[in-house]
Amino acid sequence: MVNRIKMKIIKKPAEMQKLIKKYKLKGKTIGFVPTMGALHQGHISLIHRARKESNIIVVSIFVNPTQFGPSEDFSRYPRPFKKDAGICRKEKVAAVFVPKPKDIYPANYFTHITVEKLSDIMCGKSRPDHFKGVATVVAKLFNIVQPDRAYFGLKDYQQFIIIRKMAGDMNFPVKIIGCPLVREKNGLALSSRNAYLSGEQKQRALALSLSLQMAKNLIKNKNVKSAKSIISKIRKTLRPHVNKIDYVEIRDAETLETLGIVNKRAVIAAAIFIGKTRLIDNIIV
Amino acid sequence: MVNRIKMKIIKKPAEMQKLIKKYKLKGKTIGFVPTMGALHQGHISLIHRARKESNIIVVSIFVNPTQFGPSEDFSRYPRPFKKDAGICRKEKVAAVFVPKPKDIYPANYFTHITVEKLSDIMCGKSRPDHFKGVATVVAKLFNIVQPDRAYFGLKDYQQFIIIRKMAGDMNFPVKIIGCPLVREKNGLALSSRNAYLSGEQKQRALALSLSLQMAKNLIKNKNVKSAKSIISKIRKTLRPHVNKIDYVEIRDAETLETLGIVNKRAVIAAAIFIGKTRLIDNIIV
Repeated sequence: MVNRIKMKIIKKPAEMQKLIKKYKLKGKTIGFVPTMGALHQGHISLIHRARKESNIIVVSIFVNPTQFGPSEDFSRYPRPFKKDAGICRKEKVAAVFVPKPKDIYPANYFTHITVEKLSDIMCGKSRPDHFKGVATVVAKLFNIVQPDRAYFGLKDYQQFIIIRKMAGDMNFPVKIIGCPLVREKNGLALSSRNAYLSGEQKQRALALSLSLQMAKNLIKNKNVKSAKSIISKIRKTLRPHVNKIDYVEIRDAETLETLGIVNKRAVIAAAIFIGKTRLIDNIIV
Repeated sequence: MVNRIKMKIIKKPAEMQKLIKKYKLKGKTIGFVPTMGALHQGHISLIHRARKESNIIVVSIFVNPTQFGPSEDFSRYPRPFKKDAGICRKEKVAAVFVPKPKDIYPANYFTHITVEKLSDIMCGKSRPDHFKGVATVVAKLFNIVQPDRAYFGLKDYQQFIIIRKMAGDMNFPVKIIGCPLVREKNGLALSSRNAYLSGEQKQRALALSLSLQMAKNLIKNKNVKSAKSIISKIRKTLRPHVNKIDYVEIRDAETLETLGIVNKRAVIAAAIFIGKTRLIDNIIV
């Protein structure tokens, strides 16, 4: 059976806003899934959730230069646009927004959003301007797509907390929805960056999810509550398999404040390097 | 004759957003006049312009704490709310948004907008965080009121340029409209801060608009083009009357870049102190 309505591929912010205005005048609700493309089952789960709650689904595909550090993987980040568009079409996305960097950051672009405190910890320590880039581009996309609801994967847990904080602080009339992390059967968290890994590296990367699962078991079944001791056990488990541990932290799952004792809802989050590939994962306890 | 529709006075951001949603579903366009209250003919001229272009007029009255420096006049800034509400009612404003600071900046408020370069010059030099406070509150108000058009007086010329830049950079679907400065017959630019001046100080304050008008005449009628020489003449005119000159500058009227030679559309802007009152004014040439 053929879809009656052809999926729109839109490149210019003004064109997107014009289309959104039409939808809004018809009283349609907009569900928005912002991505950097290289779509996998994690992204698809966001689209599925959006479809349950909104009339119109918009997906953006934009590898945002301002959230990459100078030595990071911006230029080699995968951009399989045709495959991504095919997935969106199959998932009944109404419009895909694929701007060029120069349409998002024209010459003499001066404006940035910072979310204090939350942006300087965890991933923010080793990626200093990362969350400024994220908060700014998401706010811009919100103004372009004007969604009722926006969907983010909880794999990027700190990103979700920062975007939710930014949207609340800035009074964006957008509901921010975090969706469960999706894993391979072996536990590896789905990530577009997994494509960088060789077979051997992928095997070693399993230590990440396994060490977090082990930590969760320690807390739930062995009643271990000291964050220091749990972190030390995770590090010990990771060390033989990874090239570098960036951080392992246990923090309040809502505020991201550090926890000495795991006595409330917490996130255990870690970032490691396998070869040159930086991977993150987290688990809620 | 009595208005059929009673003007709404709204205190909570969520309540305002709910009302706006209703207007939008009816296809109404929203014209927005953000103010700090103490409304004068300058503000009223903005409301008049808004009324010509939009179905619904919303005025906000909020003395924004984050745009005042620690030694500035936040606490004594005039707040004649009843008089302001009367003016809005007379001008057929649909809704006045009067939030409390704690509803705009709740505990653990972390998010700020900065507009680089434009915020560090002119008024930004002597008021370091002023434009960060302005850009942030205006973006928040845009998300609360979701206007089609927003109106700003050109008396705060740098503010207008920064807000227009912020709105453009952030892709706000809002048209930013600058409206002519309104003056008393004697030339004094209308400002809520004129209320601080004694009769004698008000006389001295006239030097500000007179010196700018003189500079315009020099450029237009005497063909003087050197910014340095014009600025020096303005300073000489001001000096006997004012307590302190904060700055006198001539800049490109669009980009606020400095001009050595006045060979395109320029703004001549100045800030002075009369007693402890800081006054600004500008003229376009």
